[in-house]
Amino acid sequence: MTDTVASLMAEIADVGTDPSRGGYSRPVYSTAELDLRSWFVEHAERRGLDVQTDRNGIIWAWSGGVGEGAVVTGSHLDSVPGGGAYDGPLGVASSLVAFDRLAERGVPGRRAIAVFPEEEGSRFGLACLGSRLLTGAIDPDRARTLTDADGTTFAEATRRAGLDPARLGPDLETLARIATFVELHVEQGLGLVDHDRPVAVASSILGHGRWRIGFTGEGNHAGTTLMSGRRDPMVAAAVLISDVQRLTRRVPDARATVGRLVPTPGGTNVIASHVDVWLDVRHPDDAVTRILVAEIEAAAKAAAAEQDCTVVITEESFSATVDFDPVLRDRLADLLDDAPRLGTGAGHDAGILKDHVSTAMLFVRNPTGVSHAPGEAVEDADAETGAEALADGLEALLGAS
Amino acid sequence: MTDTVASLMAEIADVGTDPSRGGYSRPVYSTAELDLRSWFVEHAERRGLDVQTDRNGIIWAWSGGVGEGAVVTGSHLDSVPGGGAYDGPLGVASSLVAFDRLAERGVPGRRAIAVFPEEEGSRFGLACLGSRLLTGAIDPDRARTLTDADGTTFAEATRRAGLDPARLGPDLETLARIATFVELHVEQGLGLVDHDRPVAVASSILGHGRWRIGFTGEGNHAGTTLMSGRRDPMVAAAVLISDVQRLTRRVPDARATVGRLVPTPGGTNVIASHVDVWLDVRHPDDAVTRILVAEIEAAAKAAAAEQDCTVVITEESFSATVDFDPVLRDRLADLLDDAPRLGTGAGHDAGILKDHVSTAMLFVRNPTGVSHAPGEAVEDADAETGAEALADGLEALLGAS
Repeated sequence: MTDTVASLMAEIADVGTDPSRGGYSRPVYSTAELDLRSWFVEHAERRGLDVQTDRNGIIWAWSGGVGEGAVVTGSHLDSVPGGGAYDGPLGVASSLVAFDRLAERGVPGRRAIAVFPEEEGSRFGLACLGSRLLTGAIDPDRARTLTDADGTTFAEATRRAGLDPARLGPDLETLARIATFVELHVEQGLGLVDHDRPVAVASSILGHGRWRIGFTGEGNHAGTTLMSGRRDPMVAAAVLISDVQRLTRRVPDARATVGRLVPTPGGTNVIASHVDVWLDVRHPDDAVTRILVAEIEAAAKAAAAEQDCTVVITEESFSATVDFDPVLRDRLADLLDDAPRLGTGAGHDAGILKDHVSTAMLFVRNPTGVSHAPGEAVEDADAETGAEALADGLEALLGAS
Repeated sequence: MTDTVASLMAEIADVGTDPSRGGYSRPVYSTAELDLRSWFVEHAERRGLDVQTDRNGIIWAWSGGVGEGAVVTGSHLDSVPGGGAYDGPLGVASSLVAFDRLAERGVPGRRAIAVFPEEEGSRFGLACLGSRLLTGAIDPDRARTLTDADGTTFAEATRRAGLDPARLGPDLETLARIATFVELHVEQGLGLVDHDRPVAVASSILGHGRWRIGFTGEGNHAGTTLMSGRRDPMVAAAVLISDVQRLTRRVPDARATVGRLVPTPGGTNVIASHVDVWLDVRHPDDAVTRILVAEIEAAAKAAAAEQDCTVVITEESFSATVDFDPVLRDRLADLLDDAPRLGTGAGHDAGILKDHVSTAMLFVRNPTGVSHAPGEAVEDADAETGAEALADGLEALLGAS
């Protein structure tokens, strides 16, 4: 009854499936995500790990005693709406298997698996919320007031998950226990397919941010309101979305996306009174990101003015480009048979922790290159190779610590 | 304790308020709409009317005995999401007050108030669903399979409302009981303000239809997918929405609206895999509507092709332009001190019944001209004037029948 990554992933294959979108919808502190957290705790306790949930909802499973100087791995269990099976859970399942390998090899040393809440920001709009709270990258007052689509605050969701929202916030004692953090993650592109290799080491994370752009016009009847008298925020939003593509295509390596749009009231026979669009922009050079966003903001204002609407633009988050510790990166790459070093356009908790502890990431090959969608894939053999690579990396780090 | 239109409207002012959108959200067979139906039944029974709910969920409140040759008035109680207070309920409240006037005047004759379900089509996507079922304008098999945003079928919603979905469908016996139908409705424009008059008689209803346009691309990660490799249906939808405005502005008297757009999966950091937009198009000349929709369809196909997406266009409904019975229209207008005769861009159950029975509509002045939005308004004095006008019209029709 030895667990493999594939057997662990199979255990959770039915949790949080989304029949309408396809794939998985596992927002933080939903029934699905709480079920996955319980599943992880059960596996950790079965291995004799000392499991603690901290004030920010991060689950820690310790081996070798709770304390400073630990080598930590882990990932997250929440998903985007209609996401794939691997983004997050692969890193958690691989951590459990890697710890099994370390135990079999008799590797000593203090180590832990960490499971972070709301990595995707799918429910409360701010990605890496757990690691941001841990490190003080977000003011806990702001975190408490973040709301989901139903109007539930993060404070209330935290309370319902059995935590005290008053205690959310930076936790330097917990942070100080991490000497090194290594996150294994499914690759979200075709870099490893191109290299014909199963595992890579991360070189960098693209700088990225999210902006909410709210257009306000005048709601009215779709049949009785002449075209000439309209102040239609849906048209303003539409013009902006076209402009986002046009402006971004001119900038090499830039990516900008509107994947979410919510009209109010959202009736077929009603001119919307308000339309919110969410903009995601990423580029390796943060200055370029800022310039592109400024251009998009100007386009939003022009589109609003053209439709006699108003617009309010709110930066929900911005994360600068992260270059991982080059010494640790090269050491892991050398250890893993000169693994490719790949950058990624996706954000990760490792990118938040990187400012506080020595941090690295491993990527496992994704034959489709698709992520945040049901087509996300990992072959079983690659998943096991990834967990072995993680065990090898952790062993080396434990030997050095 | 004589009811006025204003006192009746005040009784339901708290039912189905929508704190997030503003105004009212009273979708058919929701708790709010069922509460309003119970409120109507209570008022009808208090007046000694004989209340029956037919196989299609239409409530009939009879005076003078159930049977053929009746003069019928009424409207609906459901609303668009975030709609105003008057669209529907004003006609129902005015019908109760008009029946009070007829009783006070000792007017004899068979008459009824009808309350139609799902006039707006806000829940199941097809406006005037109750009157379409009654008249056979929709196949009951199609009606049963219509689904709301949560995936509930109209059959299931009908069952939950206490009706047998197997019995949905044309009801010639009930239809044959209506000699004349008169619907009073809040005006959804500024025609009466321009005429400085409180009440108008309807001349026509603009032809109108709804189309669902579904773009399918490829869902993927917003950060890791380069702009050049994308198949983004949100961009295709955005281009189409701009085109709808551009194409429609060229056509005098045409109105076309996209008020509802749903991306799947709808995550900020996810390129959508699918986007549905709903298109509402109206014009007095049905041939012009058809040409405009064909142009919009061509634009949708071009926008999809440009983004390497596919598109499927589905006509959800089409209602031809309705010219109301000119003899009845002129008789009512003469009776009401030469009331203005106004066309309307909005659909109504009266427009469906018009093909089967002599049908007329009265409009009551709306000082804002806004409808399907919280700003919809009627002054109390105009509401009472409207109910008196309805009573006068019904009395004349009862005297003639």
